[in-house]
Amino acid sequence: MFQTFAAQSSPDQGPPRLAALRAEMARQGVDGFIVPRADAFQGEYVAPRDARLQWLTGFSGSAGFCVVLPDVAGIFVDGRYRVQVHNQVADVFTPVNWPETRLPDWLPDHMRDGAVLAYDPWLHTVSEIADLRDALPNIILRPVDNLVDAIWGDQPPPPNAPFFAQPLEYAGEAHADKRARLAKLLRVDSAVLTLPDSIAWLMNIRGADIERNPVPHAFALLHRTGKVDLFAGPGKARDIVDHLGADVTLHDIDVFLDHLAALAGTVQIDPKSCPDIVAATLRTAEVTITESRDPCVLPKARKNPVEVAGAKAAQERDGVAMVRFLAWLDAEAPKGHLTEIDVVRTLEEFRVQTNALRDISFETISGAGPNGAIVHYRVTEKTNRAVNPGELLLVDSGGQYVDGTTDITRTIVIGGPTAEHRACYTRVLQGMIAISRIRFPKGVAGQHLDALARAPLWLAGQDYDHGTGHGIGSYLSVHEGPQGLSRRSDTALEQGMILSNEPGYYREGAFGIRIENLIVVIAAPALEGADHGRDMLAFETLTHVPLDRRLIDTDMLSPAERDWIDRYHADTLTLVGSRLDDVTGEWLRQACAPL
Amino acid sequence: MFQTFAAQSSPDQGPPRLAALRAEMARQGVDGFIVPRADAFQGEYVAPRDARLQWLTGFSGSAGFCVVLPDVAGIFVDGRYRVQVHNQVADVFTPVNWPETRLPDWLPDHMRDGAVLAYDPWLHTVSEIADLRDALPNIILRPVDNLVDAIWGDQPPPPNAPFFAQPLEYAGEAHADKRARLAKLLRVDSAVLTLPDSIAWLMNIRGADIERNPVPHAFALLHRTGKVDLFAGPGKARDIVDHLGADVTLHDIDVFLDHLAALAGTVQIDPKSCPDIVAATLRTAEVTITESRDPCVLPKARKNPVEVAGAKAAQERDGVAMVRFLAWLDAEAPKGHLTEIDVVRTLEEFRVQTNALRDISFETISGAGPNGAIVHYRVTEKTNRAVNPGELLLVDSGGQYVDGTTDITRTIVIGGPTAEHRACYTRVLQGMIAISRIRFPKGVAGQHLDALARAPLWLAGQDYDHGTGHGIGSYLSVHEGPQGLSRRSDTALEQGMILSNEPGYYREGAFGIRIENLIVVIAAPALEGADHGRDMLAFETLTHVPLDRRLIDTDMLSPAERDWIDRYHADTLTLVGSRLDDVTGEWLRQACAPL
Repeated sequence: MFQTFAAQSSPDQGPPRLAALRAEMARQGVDGFIVPRADAFQGEYVAPRDARLQWLTGFSGSAGFCVVLPDVAGIFVDGRYRVQVHNQVADVFTPVNWPETRLPDWLPDHMRDGAVLAYDPWLHTVSEIADLRDALPNIILRPVDNLVDAIWGDQPPPPNAPFFAQPLEYAGEAHADKRARLAKLLRVDSAVLTLPDSIAWLMNIRGADIERNPVPHAFALLHRTGKVDLFAGPGKARDIVDHLGADVTLHDIDVFLDHLAALAGTVQIDPKSCPDIVAATLRTAEVTITESRDPCVLPKARKNPVEVAGAKAAQERDGVAMVRFLAWLDAEAPKGHLTEIDVVRTLEEFRVQTNALRDISFETISGAGPNGAIVHYRVTEKTNRAVNPGELLLVDSGGQYVDGTTDITRTIVIGGPTAEHRACYTRVLQGMIAISRIRFPKGVAGQHLDALARAPLWLAGQDYDHGTGHGIGSYLSVHEGPQGLSRRSDTALEQGMILSNEPGYYREGAFGIRIENLIVVIAAPALEGADHGRDMLAFETLTHVPLDRRLIDTDMLSPAERDWIDRYHADTLTLVGSRLDDVTGEWLRQACAPL
Repeated sequence: MFQTFAAQSSPDQGPPRLAALRAEMARQGVDGFIVPRADAFQGEYVAPRDARLQWLTGFSGSAGFCVVLPDVAGIFVDGRYRVQVHNQVADVFTPVNWPETRLPDWLPDHMRDGAVLAYDPWLHTVSEIADLRDALPNIILRPVDNLVDAIWGDQPPPPNAPFFAQPLEYAGEAHADKRARLAKLLRVDSAVLTLPDSIAWLMNIRGADIERNPVPHAFALLHRTGKVDLFAGPGKARDIVDHLGADVTLHDIDVFLDHLAALAGTVQIDPKSCPDIVAATLRTAEVTITESRDPCVLPKARKNPVEVAGAKAAQERDGVAMVRFLAWLDAEAPKGHLTEIDVVRTLEEFRVQTNALRDISFETISGAGPNGAIVHYRVTEKTNRAVNPGELLLVDSGGQYVDGTTDITRTIVIGGPTAEHRACYTRVLQGMIAISRIRFPKGVAGQHLDALARAPLWLAGQDYDHGTGHGIGSYLSVHEGPQGLSRRSDTALEQGMILSNEPGYYREGAFGIRIENLIVVIAAPALEGADHGRDMLAFETLTHVPLDRRLIDTDMLSPAERDWIDRYHADTLTLVGSRLDDVTGEWLRQACAPL
C-alpha cells in the first residue's frame, strides 16, 4: 500500500526544537533564520531529509516557511492551510497570513535595522533572495550552512535510489535528439539545470528520490555542443551509464559547485528555480551570467505523439481501475459500512491490480460529506469519517504508470441526492463541459479560458477558490508548468500540452464537488462553415470514466451539453467496456446510458 | 454637420515633401528622422498642426509612423491599415508590417552602425525612447527640433479654443476634492501630468483642441500639497480662472520645461505617456525621478454615481436619436435609394435634434454589404456605396453630451436576411449577452472575460480580430484605459468602470456584423442561493436601443438568452418609448415585442 493514514505530525516537538535552533543561531551570531518548505530542487514534494519545516514546527503543508527570530517565530502559510497550521503547530509559532502579509511587510516590525537574517542558499532561488534584498535594504541577508541540519540529530540521509532509463518507446525522442534540439536554441555556452523534471525529461531518466513523482535528484549543465554534465549522488547513476552514452559526463553531486566555479564563457540560469548558491558560485567564476527560463520547460510541456499515445493508454488502464472502483462503491456504500479510508484502500487495490502501477501520483483525497469541502483533504486515522448514505463523496486520485501520469476526480452520491446537490453538481459539470468543448485561436492562454469553466457557477453567485486546471507530466510530476487553466496562466496553449480540467464547488460544513478529466491540446478538427484560414486549437479529453448520472439535472443542460455527455459516455463504454468482467461491464453500460 | 466625406488625402504630395525632408536631414547632419502619428499628448486624435505623418506621407490612419532615411522611407502600419496605406501613399514610401516587424528589426538592414537617427523628443514617450536605445545600441538616437515643422510652410498654428469648466452637477466631485484625494496617495513631491484626459478629469475642465474628444491640450504638475500648476497655451484658460481657484497656478505652456528644470524634491512621471523631453529636462534638475502610472488614470476610470447617472441620461437621450434613426431606416432603406453617406447624415441630424449634442464621439462607421467587413471603415464620397436590400448595414456611432459619451453599434438587415446572416448575427448576439449577464468575483480583469464573448463564434470556427470592449470616458475620450475587455486587459474591473461590449463577425467581401452596448460595472445584485460572503460584480447595460429581431435565430438561443433579450427590449420600450412621436413609438413597440 502506497498511502498511509497516520496523522503526520504533532505540535509537541516544536518548542524544544525551536529552542535548540535559537541556541544555534546565537552560537553562530545571527539574528534570524528562514526555514522554507522547499528543498534545493524546488519541487512540490521533499525527501524526509528535507522536511525541515515539518520537523521544526510540525506543519506538514506543501508550501510555506518559518522565520525564526530570538523572540518570535512567524510561520507563513496560505489560505489552504489556515486551519491546519493551528492544529499542527504549538503556540510558540505565530501563524502569519501569507501572501497577504509578505516577509518584507512583517520583518521590519520584528527585526532592527542592521540585524542579520541567515538563510540556506541551497533552499532559496536567485529571485527570492534578490527580491528580499531589494525589499529589505536595512537587513543583512547572510547565506549559512543549514542551521536546522546542525541540530537535527537523527536527520535522514539523502535518498539514494538509483536512477533508471525511460525507454524510447514511451519517451518518443532519444535524449541525444533532445539535447541537440535544445542546444541549437541556446544563446549561451552552458545552461544550468536544477529542476529534476527538466533533467528527467531531457535525459529520458526517472528516479525514486521522493514519493509520488518519479523525478531524479540531480543537477546538470547543458552545453551548446549538446553535451551534458550530470551531477548525482554517489552510485545513483550506475544503472544508466549505457543509456546516457559518451556525450554525457557523470559527476558526483558534491563537485557541482567546484565545477561551476571552473566554467568559462556565458552561462544561463533560471532565476525562478536556480538555488541562490549556484548564482553566487558563478559570480566568482570567469563567466557572464544571463537569466532565462529553463530551456526544457516548454519542450517538456509540449508532449510528442508517443507521449500523448502513452497518456491515452495510461488513462484507459486507469479508467478500468476507476470503473471497477465506482461499481464496487455503488454496491457497498449504500449499506453504510464504509469509511473514507476504506475508499482509499480499495481504489489503490484496483489500481495495483492493473499490474502496471508504479506509484500513486499523489495521496488520494477521499472526502465524505463536509470533508469533501476541504480542498486539500488527506484522510488520517484521526479524521476518518463514515461514508454515509445521502451524502456526496469526493475522490481525487491518480496513478503513475510508465506511459503516463493520471489524475482524476469523481464526485459520487451515496444513495439519493438532494435537489441542491444536483443543481451544484450540474453547474460544475457545465463548466467542465465548456472547457472540454471549446475551440480557440492560437495565442490564447489558460487565463483566457478559466472563466468559461466558472460562468455557470458565477451566474448562481458561486465559485471555487482554486485554478481550473494544471499541467501534467508524462510519467513525471502530476503538477507541471508552465501551462495551466487559471487567472495566472499566461502561457499560450500549444498542441500536445496536457492539462487537468477540474472545476469544483465547495460548501463548507456540508459537501464538496469536483469533476476532473485530463485533456490534451490538439489542432481543432475541421468544421463545416468555419472560417477558412483561421486555424484553431481544441482539447481532446483523455480520461474516460462515467459521470454520476444521478447528480445531473438534465433540465439545466443545453442540447449541446447533453449531447456532449451522451457522446462522452458512449466513448467511455467503447474504450473501457471490453476490459471488464461481466458484472462490472453491466454496471458500466447502465452508468453510460444516454441521459 | 460634424462629419465630412472628402477623401482625406492623396499620394501626390508625398514625393516632393519627402525630398524636402531629406534635404533638411542633410542640412542638419542626421541620417534619419522618425515621424510618428502621435502628438505630445499621446491621444488617439491629433490637431491639424500635429498631423505630420499624414502631411508627409498621405497616410491618415490613427496609428503608425514613418522612418525617413536617405534611401528608403519605411511606413510602419498595423493590420487594420495594410490596404489603406497602399491607397494613400506614393511608392516612395515602403510599407512595413508592424508590429510583426518592429523598428529595431528593420533598422539594422537600412542604417549603418554609428549613424544618427533623429527624433522629436516631444512626440515620443520615455518608454519608447528607452526601449529604442536598448534595442539599437549601435545607432545614435538624437533629439532635435521637429524636422517636418522646419519644412512645413503653411503648418497650421496650435489650436487655441478656450477651456471650459465641467460643472459639478456632471463631474460629481469638486476638483479641490479630487486634488486632495490624489495628493494623499502621492509618494512624491510632484507628479507630472501630460495626458489631456487626466488633466480634464482632475481639474473638471474640458477643451476643444481636437475634434471628437473634448480634451484640453495642457500639461500639469500635481503637488503633494494638493496644489496644481497648469500649463496652457496663451489665453486658453481665460474662462476658467474662477473655476480653478487659488490653489491652481496658471502658466503659459511655453515655460513648462523651464518650470520642470527648477523643480526640487521627488518627481513622478508615467514613462508610458510622458514625452521624452520632460524626463530629459528633469534629469538636468535637482530632483529624484520615479516612474509610476499617471495617478489620475484609475480614479478617472472608476466613475462616481453622478457620472454614472449622467451616462444613463446621455444613453437614453442618444437612444431616442438612434430609435428615430432605425425607424427611418426601416421605412426608407427597402426602397433602395439610400447610400452610406445618407445614413451618416440622417443619423447625425437625429442626434443634433436632441439639442444636447456637443460633437459626435467619432466618425460614424456606416458600412453596407462588404464595406461592413472593414472594421475601421469611414465612408468618403469616393467609397460611398448604395444600401441595397438583402444586405446588412453596420452602423457604429456615438455622441458627446455634457453628461456622457456614447458609443453604439447596430447591424440592420435591409429587407430579408439569409440563413447565414442570421446564424452569424445570433452568435455575435450570444457573445454580447454572455458579457451582459455575467457575474464575477473581484479581481477579475477584462482579459479573463473576453472569451465569454467569443465562445459562441469559436465553437463555429469563427472569431473577430479586435477587442471585445474598451473603456469610455465621461464626456471625454471615447476610448479610455486602463479597463477593457480584451486578451491584453489586465486591469481588475471595479465598480463604476464603463466599457463597451461589442463582439463582431466579419466576412471579407460579403458582410460585417457588430453589436455594441455600453455597460457599467456594478455590485452584483443579491441572488437567491448565492454563497454568503462571496461579493461579486456584474455589468449593468447602459445602452437601450432595439436589436434587429429579423436577424435573431431563436432556435439557437438558450432560455436564459431569450429571456435576456425580451427583458432588454421591455426595458428599452420603458426607457425610450415615452419620448417618441406616435409613429416612431409604434415602430419601437413592434421592434421590442417579445421573441
